[in-house]
Amino acid sequence: MLTFVGIGLYDENDITLRGLEACRAADKVYIEYYTGIWHGGEALERMLGRKLVELKRDNLEQNSGRIVDEAKNYKIVLLVPGDPLVATTHATMISDAMGKGIKTEVIHNASIFSAVCETGLHIYKFGKTTTVPFADKTGGVLPQSLYDTLRLNKKSGLHTLLLLDIASEKKMTSKEGIKILLDLEDGMKESLFTENTEIVVFARAGSGNSIIAFGRVRDLKDRDFGNPPMVLIVPGQMHFTEREHLERFDAERIEEI
Amino acid sequence: MLTFVGIGLYDENDITLRGLEACRAADKVYIEYYTGIWHGGEALERMLGRKLVELKRDNLEQNSGRIVDEAKNYKIVLLVPGDPLVATTHATMISDAMGKGIKTEVIHNASIFSAVCETGLHIYKFGKTTTVPFADKTGGVLPQSLYDTLRLNKKSGLHTLLLLDIASEKKMTSKEGIKILLDLEDGMKESLFTENTEIVVFARAGSGNSIIAFGRVRDLKDRDFGNPPMVLIVPGQMHFTEREHLERFDAERIEEI
Repeated sequence: MLTFVGIGLYDENDITLRGLEACRAADKVYIEYYTGIWHGGEALERMLGRKLVELKRDNLEQNSGRIVDEAKNYKIVLLVPGDPLVATTHATMISDAMGKGIKTEVIHNASIFSAVCETGLHIYKFGKTTTVPFADKTGGVLPQSLYDTLRLNKKSGLHTLLLLDIASEKKMTSKEGIKILLDLEDGMKESLFTENTEIVVFARAGSGNSIIAFGRVRDLKDRDFGNPPMVLIVPGQMHFTEREHLERFDAERIEEI
Repeated sequence: MLTFVGIGLYDENDITLRGLEACRAADKVYIEYYTGIWHGGEALERMLGRKLVELKRDNLEQNSGRIVDEAKNYKIVLLVPGDPLVATTHATMISDAMGKGIKTEVIHNASIFSAVCETGLHIYKFGKTTTVPFADKTGGVLPQSLYDTLRLNKKSGLHTLLLLDIASEKKMTSKEGIKILLDLEDGMKESLFTENTEIVVFARAGSGNSIIAFGRVRDLKDRDFGNPPMVLIVPGQMHFTEREHLERFDAERIEEI
């Protein structure tokens, strides 16, 4: 039996009772921290009175076959930040397990994909989501597909959620993400992300010290909102209730960390 | 203090430790069941050793101002199925509270918006989401905006998540939702939702008896997958790994309830 347990947005307090129970019933519990930033590993070990086996990115890519095979004869749990199958690497693992006739289970949890509603933007008005990658991931080439996504959503008046890269040792801040988007704008010149564009920065969603800031790029680009994870949102056409809600997070009134 | 606590997809075991703690610290705990189908109310009362005050739709719409005002002097918790601010009615309440200078907090939880990844479809390839409403909500007129959303997403090769109406006494089944979409197709004739279209039915996500079924409309339209909640997905252009994953849920091998 292979059970994927989502551990939510921030720390050990975000696990669900169903998730805890799966850990208690398991023969072995793995955890990974590279598809999300999560803070509760040691506290969760104390809570469960057992060791969690950490999987590094390389482990998983090399060993996912072995873990799936372990699940033939043992109850294996893999703890994953956020909602577990959002990361395609886990979806592939569960698909492999199903192909081998191994019983699988998914215990869902919170994810940034719905947490963005805390900004006041309506979930029905989000279009396609994309990630802003570090330049070294793209061989120094600016990721033009980002700009394509902004264009696509803007054309239909939809909001764009831009996840900032966390899938390496470095984790991207809003400053770094905004810089990449302004560099793209410099090349493309379609006014999809200028100094004047209104955006939202949402830092550390689901933690006790989350920050939502709404304002123009020029007013947000140099500000320090603390540690990642962070996302940016470029709102499309806003309903007046969305704007009213967002204005409660007016960047001028939001303190830096 | 006004705290919105997401209670996740299915029952009392889906609450997080953070959510439980908020309930324990509260002066009063409200719960509503009309933005999602949720089964753990009584069990949660036993777990907490306290009464939950149920809000009906009318209560909330009439009394949200009163509840916000209560939160001026008391710790008020509102338990909400799924992730709490996905429902715009709750976003409005929290915006009102913020406007009155009341401290607010959001405790996130699982939502169908990320749980859909259990189907194997990649979250980055979903476009705009929409809801299939019952005919009596639309005065008997077919909801053409649904078809517009299918067209919009298809044009860009994106997947469409179609939530089935649960916001009334009746809760929509996949059969009823498919019927409405086929009726729309009959009028529009753009081949966006025909007997031959491949779709996914995802019933009772996050419960112990969830069902995912993948197949053509003609093979799914008359099948009984049990009780709502259910969603439909019309996949756009699929990556081969998405198709491979989905084919593990081949409707011909999925039993009805």
